[in-house]
Amino acid sequence: MAIEQFKATAHLKQGTQVKVSSRGFELTLDEPVAEGGTDLGMNPVEALLGALGACQAIVARVYAKRFKVQLDDFWVELEGDLDSDGYMDKADVRCGYSAIRYTYHIKSPSAQADIDAFVAFIGGKCPVGDSLAQGVDLQLVGVVQE
Amino acid sequence: MAIEQFKATAHLKQGTQVKVSSRGFELTLDEPVAEGGTDLGMNPVEALLGALGACQAIVARVYAKRFKVQLDDFWVELEGDLDSDGYMDKADVRCGYSAIRYTYHIKSPSAQADIDAFVAFIGGKCPVGDSLAQGVDLQLVGVVQE
Repeated sequence: MAIEQFKATAHLKQGTQVKVSSRGFELTLDEPVAEGGTDLGMNPVEALLGALGACQAIVARVYAKRFKVQLDDFWVELEGDLDSDGYMDKADVRCGYSAIRYTYHIKSPSAQADIDAFVAFIGGKCPVGDSLAQGVDLQLVGVVQE
Repeated sequence: MAIEQFKATAHLKQGTQVKVSSRGFELTLDEPVAEGGTDLGMNPVEALLGALGACQAIVARVYAKRFKVQLDDFWVELEGDLDSDGYMDKADVRCGYSAIRYTYHIKSPSAQADIDAFVAFIGGKCPVGDSLAQGVDLQLVGVVQE
C-alpha cells in the first residue's frame, strides 16, 4: 500500500469563473456565454476529458520503453456524451457523462505487435480513467461557514 | 433528451508534459520532478479534483437564486486517496482514486435552512461529480497510426 493524498481547491469568482489551484499551479475554468458564463476557459466537463487524455498520454510515456515502443508522437482525441437536461433539472436523467469515446494517435517506427500490446495496456493503467470507469466514493466531509 | 458532445485533445510533448486543448483553450499538465516530470503544471489527478470542485462551484452559482442563497464567497477544498502501487504496476490494486473528500466554504447572510438545503443539493447536480460517483462507459474507439 502506497496511498497518497492529492489536493486541489476551486474558488468561485465572478459569474461562473472558477480559479482552480493545486500545488501553486492555477487555471481558470468557466462556462461559454451561451451557458451564462464569460468564456474565459474550458468548462469543467471539458477539463475532465482533458485530464483523462493527459493521464493516458503520461501512462504512454512512462510505459513505452517496457513495450519497446518508440513514441515519435502521441495524442488522444476525446469526446463525451452528456444530457444537459440532467444538469438543468429538466428531466430525471443523470447529470454526468453517459459515455466517453477516445482515439489514440500514435507515430512510431516500432513493431506492430509491440504497438498493439502497448495500446491495449495504457487504458487500464490510467488513474483518471480508472476513477471514471470504476467510480469513486465522493464524500462531503464538511461545510464551513466563513 | 438533450445529449451534447464535449471534446478535448491531449497531446504528449517533452517527457510527461501534455498540452490539453478544448475549444481553443489550452493548458499544460505535467508530473512533478519526483515522478519523472518537469513540473510545468498540475498533474492529471490534481486537474481531476480541480474539475470536480469547479463543477460544484458553478452548480452553486447557477442554483443559488433558486435556494434564495446569496453567495458572498464560495470555494471547495478537495482531497483524494490514490494508491500509487496500482499505477506503478507494483500491486494488483486499482489505479484510480478510492475516495475523494470535499469541503464547502461558504460566506452567505442567507437563512441557515436555505443554506442547508442548497448545500445538500449541489453535489447531486454536478456533471463531473456524477461522472465520478456513478462511473462512465469509457470506449477506445480507434488507434490511428500517423
